[in-house]
Amino acid sequence: MTGITHLVFPDGSAPSTVGAVTAATTPPELDRTDPEGAIAAAAKRCSNWGRWGADDVLGTLNFLDETKRVEGARLVRRGVSFSLAQSFDANGPQRGWRRRTNPVHTMLDTGLDAERGQGFPHGLGGADDVVFMPLQASTQWDGLGHIFDHGTAYNGRRAGDVVTSEGDGVTGIETVAALITGRGVLLDVGRAIGTDGELPDGFAITPAHLEATVAAQGGSARVGRGDLLLVRTGRLARARREGWGDYAGGDSPGLSFTTADWLHGTEVAGVATDTWGFEVRPNEFDVAFQPLHQVAIPHTGLFIGEMWDLDALAADCAADGVWDFLLTAAPLPVTGAVGAPVNPIAVK
Amino acid sequence: MTGITHLVFPDGSAPSTVGAVTAATTPPELDRTDPEGAIAAAAKRCSNWGRWGADDVLGTLNFLDETKRVEGARLVRRGVSFSLAQSFDANGPQRGWRRRTNPVHTMLDTGLDAERGQGFPHGLGGADDVVFMPLQASTQWDGLGHIFDHGTAYNGRRAGDVVTSEGDGVTGIETVAALITGRGVLLDVGRAIGTDGELPDGFAITPAHLEATVAAQGGSARVGRGDLLLVRTGRLARARREGWGDYAGGDSPGLSFTTADWLHGTEVAGVATDTWGFEVRPNEFDVAFQPLHQVAIPHTGLFIGEMWDLDALAADCAADGVWDFLLTAAPLPVTGAVGAPVNPIAVK
Amino acid sequence: MTGITHLVFPDGSAPSTVGAVTAATTPPELDRTDPEGAIAAAAKRCSNWGRWGADDVLGTLNFLDETKRVEGARLVRRGVSFSLAQSFDANGPQRGWRRRTNPVHTMLDTGLDAERGQGFPHGLGGADDVVFMPLQASTQWDGLGHIFDHGTAYNGRRAGDVVTSEGDGVTGIETVAALITGRGVLLDVGRAIGTDGELPDGFAITPAHLEATVAAQGGSARVGRGDLLLVRTGRLARARREGWGDYAGGDSPGLSFTTADWLHGTEVAGVATDTWGFEVRPNEFDVAFQPLHQVAIPHTGLFIGEMWDLDALAADCAADGVWDFLLTAAPLPVTGAVGAPVNPIAVK
Amino acid sequence: MTGITHLVFPDGSAPSTVGAVTAATTPPELDRTDPEGAIAAAAKRCSNWGRWGADDVLGTLNFLDETKRVEGARLVRRGVSFSLAQSFDANGPQRGWRRRTNPVHTMLDTGLDAERGQGFPHGLGGADDVVFMPLQASTQWDGLGHIFDHGTAYNGRRAGDVVTSEGDGVTGIETVAALITGRGVLLDVGRAIGTDGELPDGFAITPAHLEATVAAQGGSARVGRGDLLLVRTGRLARARREGWGDYAGGDSPGLSFTTADWLHGTEVAGVATDTWGFEVRPNEFDVAFQPLHQVAIPHTGLFIGEMWDLDALAADCAADGVWDFLLTAAPLPVTGAVGAPVNPIAVK
Repeated sequence: MTGITHLVFPDGSAPSTVGAVTAATTPPELDRTDPEGAIAAAAKRCSNWGRWGADDVLGTLNFLDETKRVEGARLVRRGVSFSLAQSFDANGPQRGWRRRTNPVHTMLDTGLDAERGQGFPHGLGGADDVVFMPLQASTQWDGLGHIFDHGTAYNGRRAGDVVTSEGDGVTGIETVAALITGRGVLLDVGRAIGTDGELPDGFAITPAHLEATVAAQGGSARVGRGDLLLVRTGRLARARREGWGDYAGGDSPGLSFTTADWLHGTEVAGVATDTWGFEVRPNEFDVAFQPLHQVAIPHTGLFIGEMWDLDALAADCAADGVWDFLLTAAPLPVTGAVGAPVNPIAVK
Repeated sequence: MTGITHLVFPDGSAPSTVGAVTAATTPPELDRTDPEGAIAAAAKRCSNWGRWGADDVLGTLNFLDETKRVEGARLVRRGVSFSLAQSFDANGPQRGWRRRTNPVHTMLDTGLDAERGQGFPHGLGGADDVVFMPLQASTQWDGLGHIFDHGTAYNGRRAGDVVTSEGDGVTGIETVAALITGRGVLLDVGRAIGTDGELPDGFAITPAHLEATVAAQGGSARVGRGDLLLVRTGRLARARREGWGDYAGGDSPGLSFTTADWLHGTEVAGVATDTWGFEVRPNEFDVAFQPLHQVAIPHTGLFIGEMWDLDALAADCAADGVWDFLLTAAPLPVTGAVGAPVNPIAVK
Repeated sequence: MTGITHLVFPDGSAPSTVGAVTAATTPPELDRTDPEGAIAAAAKRCSNWGRWGADDVLGTLNFLDETKRVEGARLVRRGVSFSLAQSFDANGPQRGWRRRTNPVHTMLDTGLDAERGQGFPHGLGGADDVVFMPLQASTQWDGLGHIFDHGTAYNGRRAGDVVTSEGDGVTGIETVAALITGRGVLLDVGRAIGTDGELPDGFAITPAHLEATVAAQGGSARVGRGDLLLVRTGRLARARREGWGDYAGGDSPGLSFTTADWLHGTEVAGVATDTWGFEVRPNEFDVAFQPLHQVAIPHTGLFIGEMWDLDALAADCAADGVWDFLLTAAPLPVTGAVGAPVNPIAVK
Repeated sequence: MTGITHLVFPDGSAPSTVGAVTAATTPPELDRTDPEGAIAAAAKRCSNWGRWGADDVLGTLNFLDETKRVEGARLVRRGVSFSLAQSFDANGPQRGWRRRTNPVHTMLDTGLDAERGQGFPHGLGGADDVVFMPLQASTQWDGLGHIFDHGTAYNGRRAGDVVTSEGDGVTGIETVAALITGRGVLLDVGRAIGTDGELPDGFAITPAHLEATVAAQGGSARVGRGDLLLVRTGRLARARREGWGDYAGGDSPGLSFTTADWLHGTEVAGVATDTWGFEVRPNEFDVAFQPLHQVAIPHTGLFIGEMWDLDALAADCAADGVWDFLLTAAPLPVTGAVGAPVNPIAVK
């Protein structure tokens, strides 16, 4: 019985019924019947194993050096700041897949207790609280221990040597606690390519779409080594308008599998989207589940952010035409975590 | 029976046995027998009620404006970044007071499961995780709904109108999710005043100590309106060396009750320390519990950070003689939270 | 904002849109427009306040005395035992209403870790686990602190004197930890009155239906003082067949508000059903929420069980024609709990 | 790093420093230097693998048949019932070993909220609650998936085929949810052998001690096939008097490793004690950790209960001279659990 729940995808479908992406958005170079082959080939092309030594645990965050932080800080001109976090509460999109619930926040003491009297001296009263939450319940970073390819983790380690029941003892999120601050750049593909600022579900964002967005947005939107790239699809805006529905695991626009090389080649330090799963869903193979993750995390060592709220920032960028900014996206350093909640802050 | 646990303090002592602070560190202006009177008087002097309107929920974060963020960003010169968070794991200092446990991080899936096979197609494997934690278990911000004075919360609201079992519906931490980034300044009182960089337990840091530290550290250590002030006592360094012991709730150096006016007068946007409880413990009255909180949070509307790890940053500041920096301390925006875990990032 | 979520009922409807029960199942004596009046009158008739003294915390469990336990034990003839618990896992019916999730069970150590090596000597390996669950997530008893009438709890206490953020300090479930074992009797109303063993949603079980079921089932189905009454509607069987749907909070057969006097008069020690909410839903007033609870718990002091699985026991009773048995329904004694998970065991 | 915490035992000692048991209580037949050999030999003698077929998941509960339940029920004479559960709350003995905390019970709604108004119609108010707890935090049953011998589980299965991160998919506690009710028998070894009803820490209870206790207590204390055996040491009474101290994992009286054959030979269905760990601690080998578990669970398939509160029942048995009773110890059926909280009920 064990493992059987994985055969049902988050939207309730089974692997063999993932459904068809419209021809228009299926990159012609993909053979929909051979995800294994495509993944293996991309993994070989996009691997960073050994690039920073056999002991490396930072992956693409190696690109985010001190120079990039200085560059990021210099982008602060007006002092306006944006939180890119969704809410962390019981009203989120999670519906139980993989035992992921929405965060449950409960009180240990409240103002009502304080009014009644809590036993503290001199009229002191206090409220206190606790949370239970899957680390991928809301806005988060995927750690390098989150995804494996055939039992192998980033830098060629065995998955079971990295993540046991005690957590990720090698690439736990705490290893990058201090690092993720630098130049952020937003590509609002929803606005550049979509209708009314939104891409439809199933829309696979290709390198061409990304480049077109850079071109449309101008010089401040250039993407390069060490940048923290944010890609807005408009999916969250739609969920906000229409209700969560299948936001967590269902159909969605997202990055095409074919962006694996582009992400590797640009040498971005991390990439985040406003969707549940970063990559397009349904995925671009007949039977597949998050194949781009399988290349990007264990092979490229890429840090991927999901469920970010990019809408307010995007509106500001569209208004002033400046698409880069200082981004500080410091994961909550839960020791050994393979994913980490984060309240990313962009300052322009 | 309800409420009775509050009569026992975190270190197991009862209110009447809090013990004596050495004469040397008891400010002469305090009447140790009258915390109620001292609190009432200080509350009157240090109140910000109505200063930003009856609806204000931001308190001293009103001081942290866009100009301060630009000022903070300009302090980034080398691009070196520091996480000021302690670990979030089961090895923390909490021992159950007020039902506060250390964070419990468990896995929903591991690398071992991935090696065995999880039912995903094309060799995909994944790890996933969950956390249960009191929001004040480790490095955190106190929200404005955390402390009340005689049943009254910040800005004169009734405690029970602010924080119910559903959380803080008025000043929940999400209201400040985007704001806490600006100029940080570190006062290493442990280094300036203490022995080997550490103040002893029970040492009450007075305004004079703070000013002396500013003077010792030089111009980059000036403290003013809108700054995010960090005060290092050395208490965490001692706990690291000697074991947690009573770190959570026991004796500690910390801010004297007499700093209430100084904190109010400097108009800092927030203040954080490397101790469990921000203020000196035992407290400076015969029978008391966290009296400075009772002034600073509900009356001044001051944002207080606790259990921050300032040691690496302090070493760097001592080395280069520069004590201010860009600080981004974005709380995890758990909706309605009265306290919030945070991974503060300082960049110099 | 606080409290606002209560205005939405578990099935997503608002109080004013609860909908109509078909005329056939609405008892003629109820004025659908006046739940307050009906509740007040029933509360007066059905009150047990003071019956067992001002300090009583046991309510109707006072009826379950040693004689009843001996009587229950004597009903064991064949030695066949039945668990009346539903599963406690992530696949349950909860969908987040009132922050109620399904139980989340995670491992602290697994057999895979044991195979890999856990550091124990002489080849010892171990698995360990943890659960997070609302106490009313699955099969449970309502404690006497679960429901209040206009701010008043059982035996006339103020609600806020009974249940604070520290739990129920007066009638917490631990006060009855040892008591709930005695004669159980099952009334399978679904089988006696319904179609194919099931009552339709919205079907209000009246005293007449209960009496008719007793008559149909024969002498072993008599209900009296100190008995633990189980009422099967067939609702769980339908959920099992058709999926959970709105099992948690949606439409359901259940006890009519008009059974308040019958439950009080029979002097049963407790009553449990195979439904989420014990009473019929939609409730029998135009704008109402669980009005029978409001009489039965705070006024009668009745112990109510919900989400029990009565199907296997019912089949056995139908087969041998014996409807009473030894029932041990020992709540998990979480200190201060207002509800408690339970694995009820019936032995025939 | 992973797994390293296991090298520190719950009381903080390392395997090689477990310390010496006094000569008086070390059975002469044990070679203290060879736990592996002793375990292997005992495992061979005490194995029940295949006894009930290759698919068996019930182990010694196969001995508890319908006849035993009838026998148990006939022991009810006075109708007096006892809960054998310790409390489930934050004041328990757990101190964080293996991430085991004490249960944390928090409220979702309280009587104070009800008094203030929760948005329900017609004056309804409600309290609701939630718990987070390790399944072995308090009174519990060890499931058959809790302990492995060199990577092998009960009935010869691979540990990793039984318990993954999704829980115990084979012998999860839900498989025995209905079964554990029958004849209980209490051996109060503390009273029969100890001083003032208590055995000292490190006291290893041998078969001779058990037999002497049976003899001292008389005919109602006979132990045989299908019985649920309770062994009282007095350790809990001492903890109650002196404080928890090292109750969870520290020194304790308990069953000697040499009882493995006796437990196997008597064919008891289960055995429970009033200690944290069932067997004597320090264990009876120079470097060891719970060696009796390693035989009894994976080889004998024995159900072991820990942290039971036997004191009130023992006092009653001593008073009336009757040491057997009906015992219903129904585990909370958390799906896939390797341990399960339980509120055992004894009725005499």
